[in-house]
Amino acid sequence: MPTIKVSVSGESLSPKRMIVKGRKFEYVVDKDESSPLEYILAALAGCINIVGFLVAKEMEINIEKIFVEISGKLNTDKLMGKNTEERAGYKEIEVKVRVQGDVEEEKLEEWLKQVEERCPIGDNIMNETPVKVSVEKA
Amino acid sequence: MPTIKVSVSGESLSPKRMIVKGRKFEYVVDKDESSPLEYILAALAGCINIVGFLVAKEMEINIEKIFVEISGKLNTDKLMGKNTEERAGYKEIEVKVRVQGDVEEEKLEEWLKQVEERCPIGDNIMNETPVKVSVEKA
Repeated sequence: MPTIKVSVSGESLSPKRMIVKGRKFEYVVDKDESSPLEYILAALAGCINIVGFLVAKEMEINIEKIFVEISGKLNTDKLMGKNTEERAGYKEIEVKVRVQGDVEEEKLEEWLKQVEERCPIGDNIMNETPVKVSVEKA
Repeated sequence: MPTIKVSVSGESLSPKRMIVKGRKFEYVVDKDESSPLEYILAALAGCINIVGFLVAKEMEINIEKIFVEISGKLNTDKLMGKNTEERAGYKEIEVKVRVQGDVEEEKLEEWLKQVEERCPIGDNIMNETPVKVSVEKA
């Protein structure tokens, strides 16, 4: 059964802060300390790590450690309610991966291609994903 | 200056586990306890909370608390390297928002529309976002 369902539930602690419960972990997401904008980049980083080691094992290449630097730029006008043609989210995300291990540079390009294609978070950011939202009174 | 840049950096602790540093917070992302798949949903939850209270203030509606339930389904075949037409990431994400406060149901629909449009994370998930990835040896 390769289809899985992942769920989280959140409850606001304040206008800036929400506690989000996953299966085994609680996430505190807030505006100033651990923002949603960092959370989505952290999701992408963690995904590259897991898929990176998975693909390395399949390709029989020896990766000891993966480092990533991820950054994104966005214009806050739409978020703040200003009339703008700019999008609300990141316009572009840049990911720099550095790999420690006994592996040829050439192999790394092939490795990266696989990682990019197979990382679920990368797919959801790069491509369109339907989000169905509903609201009711508690 | 409404354009901001957000950055994180990550270092693998193990094939399943990465520590990701943000501006003021460290995120541990791993396969089994706090997975990237939960992280991206937590980002969306926290975003709805922050933008939800922001929009409520502008609309002068009285929201005391926001609850969210978010779930997504995905097929793990592509992630696992199987030959498949399925995408790697979530096929669809469902968000159920419940609002506690002295507010009319009608107003809530208008509120939700604004929140959906202005939430950066929702925008990055719903729409295409370029992700530029490069690799080098450490």
